[in-house]
Amino acid sequence: MIKAAIIGATGYAGQELLRLLSRHPKVEVVSVGSRSYAGQPLREVYPLYEHISEAICSNHSLEELSEMADVVFLALPHGIASQQVTPDVLKKTKVVDLGADFRLKDLNIYEQWYRVEHHGQAVMNEAVYGLAELHREAIKQARLIGNPGCYTTCSILTLAPLVQAGIIDMDSIIIDAKSGVTGAGRTDQLPYMFCECTESIKPYKVASHRHTPEIEQELEALCHQSLQLLFTPNLVPMNRGILAVCYACLNEAGKAMSEEDIRQLYRDFYHNEYFVRLTEGRIPDTKWVKGTNFCDIGVKIDKRTNRVIAMGAIDNLIKGAAGQAVQNMNLMFDLPEKTGIDLVSDYPV
Amino acid sequence: MIKAAIIGATGYAGQELLRLLSRHPKVEVVSVGSRSYAGQPLREVYPLYEHISEAICSNHSLEELSEMADVVFLALPHGIASQQVTPDVLKKTKVVDLGADFRLKDLNIYEQWYRVEHHGQAVMNEAVYGLAELHREAIKQARLIGNPGCYTTCSILTLAPLVQAGIIDMDSIIIDAKSGVTGAGRTDQLPYMFCECTESIKPYKVASHRHTPEIEQELEALCHQSLQLLFTPNLVPMNRGILAVCYACLNEAGKAMSEEDIRQLYRDFYHNEYFVRLTEGRIPDTKWVKGTNFCDIGVKIDKRTNRVIAMGAIDNLIKGAAGQAVQNMNLMFDLPEKTGIDLVSDYPV
Amino acid sequence: MIKAAIIGATGYAGQELLRLLSRHPKVEVVSVGSRSYAGQPLREVYPLYEHISEAICSNHSLEELSEMADVVFLALPHGIASQQVTPDVLKKTKVVDLGADFRLKDLNIYEQWYRVEHHGQAVMNEAVYGLAELHREAIKQARLIGNPGCYTTCSILTLAPLVQAGIIDMDSIIIDAKSGVTGAGRTDQLPYMFCECTESIKPYKVASHRHTPEIEQELEALCHQSLQLLFTPNLVPMNRGILAVCYACLNEAGKAMSEEDIRQLYRDFYHNEYFVRLTEGRIPDTKWVKGTNFCDIGVKIDKRTNRVIAMGAIDNLIKGAAGQAVQNMNLMFDLPEKTGIDLVSDYPV
Amino acid sequence: MIKAAIIGATGYAGQELLRLLSRHPKVEVVSVGSRSYAGQPLREVYPLYEHISEAICSNHSLEELSEMADVVFLALPHGIASQQVTPDVLKKTKVVDLGADFRLKDLNIYEQWYRVEHHGQAVMNEAVYGLAELHREAIKQARLIGNPGCYTTCSILTLAPLVQAGIIDMDSIIIDAKSGVTGAGRTDQLPYMFCECTESIKPYKVASHRHTPEIEQELEALCHQSLQLLFTPNLVPMNRGILAVCYACLNEAGKAMSEEDIRQLYRDFYHNEYFVRLTEGRIPDTKWVKGTNFCDIGVKIDKRTNRVIAMGAIDNLIKGAAGQAVQNMNLMFDLPEKTGIDLVSDYPV
Repeated sequence: MIKAAIIGATGYAGQELLRLLSRHPKVEVVSVGSRSYAGQPLREVYPLYEHISEAICSNHSLEELSEMADVVFLALPHGIASQQVTPDVLKKTKVVDLGADFRLKDLNIYEQWYRVEHHGQAVMNEAVYGLAELHREAIKQARLIGNPGCYTTCSILTLAPLVQAGIIDMDSIIIDAKSGVTGAGRTDQLPYMFCECTESIKPYKVASHRHTPEIEQELEALCHQSLQLLFTPNLVPMNRGILAVCYACLNEAGKAMSEEDIRQLYRDFYHNEYFVRLTEGRIPDTKWVKGTNFCDIGVKIDKRTNRVIAMGAIDNLIKGAAGQAVQNMNLMFDLPEKTGIDLVSDYPV
Repeated sequence: MIKAAIIGATGYAGQELLRLLSRHPKVEVVSVGSRSYAGQPLREVYPLYEHISEAICSNHSLEELSEMADVVFLALPHGIASQQVTPDVLKKTKVVDLGADFRLKDLNIYEQWYRVEHHGQAVMNEAVYGLAELHREAIKQARLIGNPGCYTTCSILTLAPLVQAGIIDMDSIIIDAKSGVTGAGRTDQLPYMFCECTESIKPYKVASHRHTPEIEQELEALCHQSLQLLFTPNLVPMNRGILAVCYACLNEAGKAMSEEDIRQLYRDFYHNEYFVRLTEGRIPDTKWVKGTNFCDIGVKIDKRTNRVIAMGAIDNLIKGAAGQAVQNMNLMFDLPEKTGIDLVSDYPV
Repeated sequence: MIKAAIIGATGYAGQELLRLLSRHPKVEVVSVGSRSYAGQPLREVYPLYEHISEAICSNHSLEELSEMADVVFLALPHGIASQQVTPDVLKKTKVVDLGADFRLKDLNIYEQWYRVEHHGQAVMNEAVYGLAELHREAIKQARLIGNPGCYTTCSILTLAPLVQAGIIDMDSIIIDAKSGVTGAGRTDQLPYMFCECTESIKPYKVASHRHTPEIEQELEALCHQSLQLLFTPNLVPMNRGILAVCYACLNEAGKAMSEEDIRQLYRDFYHNEYFVRLTEGRIPDTKWVKGTNFCDIGVKIDKRTNRVIAMGAIDNLIKGAAGQAVQNMNLMFDLPEKTGIDLVSDYPV
Repeated sequence: MIKAAIIGATGYAGQELLRLLSRHPKVEVVSVGSRSYAGQPLREVYPLYEHISEAICSNHSLEELSEMADVVFLALPHGIASQQVTPDVLKKTKVVDLGADFRLKDLNIYEQWYRVEHHGQAVMNEAVYGLAELHREAIKQARLIGNPGCYTTCSILTLAPLVQAGIIDMDSIIIDAKSGVTGAGRTDQLPYMFCECTESIKPYKVASHRHTPEIEQELEALCHQSLQLLFTPNLVPMNRGILAVCYACLNEAGKAMSEEDIRQLYRDFYHNEYFVRLTEGRIPDTKWVKGTNFCDIGVKIDKRTNRVIAMGAIDNLIKGAAGQAVQNMNLMFDLPEKTGIDLVSDYPV
């Protein structure tokens, strides 16, 4: 059994991870880390664990956990993980960081968007961006994973085949993404109250969301050129789910292609990828991926305006966070990639 | 592997069953029955099955399925199952009926409340009411299970210890139950449209809901006397979940007891029952059982009015339908009772 | 024009009041009181007031407002109003208190349930319980109104005809009430976050909610005897609306009556009451009262158990708070009772 | 009093219109037309009208109503109004059509997108597009109004100042719009069931929605050139509200402008427009316009990608349908434009 520990287990992403690991056939959770609830039984914090887990929340440091666990998952606010993950820690345990600290290769970009200093230079060079569909082999060898953000996972997977194929103008990309409220985390702030969120939709952090450079980094690697895109997130009155509607102008090569040609590009790109499902004629809907590690992707072209519209849907807490973290762990420990995350949508709802 | 078939697989209960069986380690689904969608790939009806199941919906009769399957689950409107389940069928396969036809022992009561003729007299005597917490041994031996209704499962489990202990006036029971909209089934009727349901609550079928006699039957068996109770269902703007708030007057024996004494009754009654969780001081909330086969039960007494308030919460599609059906199947096939249904709440949502 | 001031204008009830007063043809709002937002333009706190109101939030004391306003509405946490309303204030202005301080005649009961000292003895004797359907004439003469609570308004109106007619056992009353989340106020506490409330229902403050003695006080006055009832509130995933499902045992007089007889009692009791609508055969649904000052009431009897089920629905922020406060103001200033609150449901939603 | 009649009064838009007209100080509703419910009291179809209206639904033809009413509102499926509105009808009454038949000037475009024949050539030339902010003077003189669609109202108002100023590439416009479920109408189709809609978001009719040519027509008139834009609607789990997030590339003139410069354009364009509110730094949120006739508009620029993001929010049933229809009627009858529609948001919800 793989001994796994979580730091930050009582936020939404951490709890989701705990839920997945508690039913993973090859994992034993050795530490449920929560600074806020240290000393309390997990089942008192989250009554859903009654009859499921006898764990007591603890407050071990990463240093301590590196002695106890084969893998430590970090679900912490940005700026903290980069201080804690050291070469010494990585000699003793593998680390999957669900936060932002090990995703951006260029620390200047990190510091510019996150406005904190990055302290992880000593390990940054070995951090692998944990999007299995793009970096599977590197993940298998990694000791440190920067687990992708929720919006980024969905956006990158949705756009990757177009970008790699070079059939769009790279600077024409616009992503209008919609997220459920769990994306804001388990936080008691007024804007996320039931009465303030329900029956309402609004954009936020327009053209300034921190997931922007992360998407750019990965797409640039696919097309071997620099690009700048426009990313708009919207807050939707639902709990889970991200829908990324991505727009781009077809270039000359793209204009020559039919919708079917472009779908074939996607089929080729995601051939054998279990967790990416191409919806072909059907438009993705977040309900079909809810509770799963799947990313559903559909694509349309608009001949009138010579644009392609690529649409992706994920469960933000699973493929966008905890499920993907388990997928990476499976790869790092040479388990079948689906182990413990071969989930079926919990529709209805 | 147990060969399982479903008739009525594309309604909400049937689909939930399919979801559970598709991840059950000891089951192979040999037929996905749907009259409406016969011939269509399941994944076209429900895109959530993309990459999960290659099944094609079929329209086999119970007669035909009895040759193919070790167990057949029926999820049909009432009045149909009683015509199809014959002694001959039961010689060849086991049957778990998720509908109402095999729940009520007294067919006069059935016909009075359901207003259809019952055609299953020949098999009725061997039908077992499939509430494992009350009838486990009989279920193990059964060939035909009448799987309990959603409201009834929650109401009976919530009240059983009080009724068996004889500490309440049996004719004082009132159940005010609240259900999510999936309880109405997958039906395109105006009252269940999003715009008609959201942001609204209302009672319905007040003092006339068909689950009433079913609850009475099981409680009468526990207290060995006849009783009549008042049952009110309410429609709540959420998808899943039933909350049963049950009221009763404490009799003299009951008045002599403390809240702790009564909780001890519950602990004794549900000793070793994995799927019943006593919440002790905490009041049940449907979110903690959502996506699981658990029934959470809490109890309070009101010294001012000498009443006991027992509150139970389940997921109507799981413990109230499909999960309980699998629990029954596990017992009938001598599998560990939790197999395939040891689920953790999919909170948040 | 009536000069009106509000203290506590930026909570949900205060804001609703402001909304109603801002469109009331006989009212000029002279002060929008908010300690938290003093000095800020109202339209920055609540962008809905853009183009509607140029008001700046202020922090005047009741003392100061009594010089400026013909009527002051208080929407404050309990225990504060009773300190501020003095005989001197009432000489200068009328007061409508939306809080709990002037509702309960018996200050011992107040202090027992609210666990704060009551400082308003000097004015308590002239406080009128502001339920126009029961106390219209007294309200017209009053200088100080204790505006009823949301649950209490709905519960009292729903039960009053039964209690006055004396056809039920007075100690058999059970109220199972359901409320939208605005009932909790505009508070940034974890249990009221979107992700914690949506798709879930739970009871709370079972047999201990502070609205209990208020309901008892008013019903006792109607039947001229003391009574104790059981009140259970439930939190429902919607914004507005209260549904009170009230149960009682019919006494001998009651058992002799038909459902139609009982409905006639209601018709007689609420004859000419504009804001009470009897739904006759139809079961009340909160959506039809949403956005209005109506209370819809329906009644059923269950011959099996000799119980009556009376069901009432209101908008908790309007008939349960702000609308009723305006109704009281209209009476106090001799305006037609419907002025400014003759609202049509904002269905859908 | 203006005598008003509605044909199609029991759909969501028609009912909303009825609600507004029933509180309009200068209107008497002389006919509530509903083919489905002819002969039934309105208050039985919609219990919200209990105590509000004694109207009986009728099924008069437009011909008949033209004798009875000063203005007739049509809320019909497309293709029907164009058959009924004749020069003769317009001699006797004014007509406001909430459907699509009189919006598009080019009947070829109409027939191409709607795939029905247009029979209204004889009156088409005098139909005025009923967007008061663009066509106020023509509306005042009109006998026939094509009331704009919900998405179009929001999109056009949001983009108009940019287009008129000529600071964007006209063929770069992308509109990603989000709508509540009432936009689908009062229809009992499976995709609009509560259980199918809640907790989910999806795009639909991607690059093929019929509101596209209507938006193009109006924007073309503003910039005096032809343009083609991409329009994507998304279905959001809420009842009311449309949010249009509009993207365009700034041209050389646009790139030279600051965000403040662009906001000034909007201020100039909408100077004195009561129903358009510029949110300046704040991002529009549908909750602030819910229940009102306002359109809230905010604008951002992204210097990284040289794009402008203009965001508009309306209540689809009010400014997007019934409220705008009343606004047009007010203009046609020389009433103050706000009469009867000077509504304050019914927030919360």
